[in-house]
Amino acid sequence: MEKKISQATLNRLPIYYRILCTAAESGVEIISSHELGKILNITPEQIRKDLTSFGNFGKKGIGYEVSDLKNKIENILGLQYHWRLGIVGAGHLGAALANYKNFPSLGFQIVALFDVDERIIGSEINGVKIYDFKKINSVATRKLVDIGVIAVPDIHAQKVADALVKAGVLGIWNFAPIKLNVPPQITLVNEDLSIGLTSLSYHLAQK
Amino acid sequence: MEKKISQATLNRLPIYYRILCTAAESGVEIISSHELGKILNITPEQIRKDLTSFGNFGKKGIGYEVSDLKNKIENILGLQYHWRLGIVGAGHLGAALANYKNFPSLGFQIVALFDVDERIIGSEINGVKIYDFKKINSVATRKLVDIGVIAVPDIHAQKVADALVKAGVLGIWNFAPIKLNVPPQITLVNEDLSIGLTSLSYHLAQK
Repeated sequence: MEKKISQATLNRLPIYYRILCTAAESGVEIISSHELGKILNITPEQIRKDLTSFGNFGKKGIGYEVSDLKNKIENILGLQYHWRLGIVGAGHLGAALANYKNFPSLGFQIVALFDVDERIIGSEINGVKIYDFKKINSVATRKLVDIGVIAVPDIHAQKVADALVKAGVLGIWNFAPIKLNVPPQITLVNEDLSIGLTSLSYHLAQK
Repeated sequence: MEKKISQATLNRLPIYYRILCTAAESGVEIISSHELGKILNITPEQIRKDLTSFGNFGKKGIGYEVSDLKNKIENILGLQYHWRLGIVGAGHLGAALANYKNFPSLGFQIVALFDVDERIIGSEINGVKIYDFKKINSVATRKLVDIGVIAVPDIHAQKVADALVKAGVLGIWNFAPIKLNVPPQITLVNEDLSIGLTSLSYHLAQK
């Protein structure tokens, strides 16, 4: 029944979700596409288009029911599962991710960090313990890790992916700029930080 | 004359660009949409659609001229300007960005880091010196910083944005999860790391 949602719409849903959470917490019950648009600097037309792409919500001339819309987006994005993340690599990138504030606000929980550096194993980053990478199987099972995050140098990324698959994760979020081989049942999302920067370059070049 | 390029296509251009650079370095002169598709795991139809969206390239049944296509993408993305980046915040995120390998491959140069922590001012990350944030005006001018990267906690982000604007940057790449106010002549791109993670959650929830 769900229609396929475009990547661009999908990218905006977490932003809508956060606004709706804030609105709900402040006791707001109804929000219009104009109000959403003003907060987000997006046209009301775009917002209505995004939101109708997964079902017809909102009443014309009134607006969207905040809690309804929030729950619907939560369900579409699967945020109700409160995915549990294990980050492999507790260097600068892993530490930055462990400290990133936007993850908890979407229900993601970072439950473990893994590294091979004995000097940092056993210590914590933002309250999350760093475990020995060698123990990933038992720790990931015990901590119910759903999603493995790869924050290690390229040359170790495939080995880490294999270990994560073996440890039973459902999905992998990969920051290493290489193409990983994973079994088809594993959901793999590659993160490429240069996309945002390239988009900035593109817009600067248009001027 | 240039048509507006969709965000999804724009996101794929740096990936095409890297493949074309590698192909050019290996002496490959012609590449087909099938070959590109195989390397990238994208359908040849999608590739042809992406590439025709900014002009009609490639000869039917033959393929694309590697060096031509590479130069065209370089020009569209503005990579020929070799933008010079100054990163404000030399904590974990700033350090991770200074170490990120995908930026130099797209011609971006990180020329300075800035921080307020006296213990790290004067030291280097990946060969890039950390300067005192107080000296951002003179250093950014001397180092010809085009793009300012905000890698500081939310509460300092607006202050840093103001300082970057005053220091004469053309664009700002913002990692702080807040809405910044910048003058209209400044190109602002907000990076939200949770978008990739949310996309992973969405795909897991579809299973």
